[in-house]
Amino acid sequence: MARTETVTLTNMCMITDGTRVLVQNRVDPDWSGYTFPGGHVEAGESFTDAVIREVQEETGLTIEAPRLCGIKDWPEDDGSRYIVLLYRADRFTGTLTSSGEGEVSWVELDELRSLPLADSMENMLRVFLEEEISEQYYLLENGKWVEMLK
Amino acid sequence: MARTETVTLTNMCMITDGTRVLVQNRVDPDWSGYTFPGGHVEAGESFTDAVIREVQEETGLTIEAPRLCGIKDWPEDDGSRYIVLLYRADRFTGTLTSSGEGEVSWVELDELRSLPLADSMENMLRVFLEEEISEQYYLLENGKWVEMLK
Repeated sequence: MARTETVTLTNMCMITDGTRVLVQNRVDPDWSGYTFPGGHVEAGESFTDAVIREVQEETGLTIEAPRLCGIKDWPEDDGSRYIVLLYRADRFTGTLTSSGEGEVSWVELDELRSLPLADSMENMLRVFLEEEISEQYYLLENGKWVEMLK
Repeated sequence: MARTETVTLTNMCMITDGTRVLVQNRVDPDWSGYTFPGGHVEAGESFTDAVIREVQEETGLTIEAPRLCGIKDWPEDDGSRYIVLLYRADRFTGTLTSSGEGEVSWVELDELRSLPLADSMENMLRVFLEEEISEQYYLLENGKWVEMLK
């Protein structure tokens, strides 16, 4: 029995600075709006190195000791699985610098939900923030995507 | 550019009951010794459902709200990546029942390191227990496996 899957491996990181969180206003037309920085894991790259690199590229900040706090995943049309590893980090060095992916800025955590968030970001926030929830999973049922928080 | 990888997706869960943890004395000759229950994620299965199912099959217990706390991964010879998602759970129902994978039993957490642990389990414990560590990563360097805690 085949025990492997074809997957896309990505990450996203919620960086906190006291009461504020670092948001990115994504310009990608496929998934625009406010979200957190992150991106693809490269082949052969450790997951931790990947999230540190992506945050550095998109924010100018070097995070320390990112903590895995959840996962988002769904099956794609071609049978592969798309995976987003969700991290939190509260220690960093460097100077905030935006990238072509979108402008980055600090906002108060309790003001985050009033921003024009990217699709699915509101429930993804629950995975970042709530101990009881570890996964945001999507499944196609009768032609419609069903979202589950687990 | 290809953005997918071929991966083996598995999980492992540290179940705690106050000061005790649930260990499995694995009989698999490829990886024997004391470890925690877990196994393969099936295609199309959510990661949370997978760890609940594996724990149920191997211990008889039904865990609630498993929390993702880290990840173990390494590149295989064929270029694929082996991934173990590490969970913690402290709520469960059911009656402890061993499976063919190995006998399960409760041990005091501070006695765990005196048991004949499976290979790499001692450092894997650090990922389960230490907030600062999210990943146990292996890389082949000059023909030798190098272990990194990140």
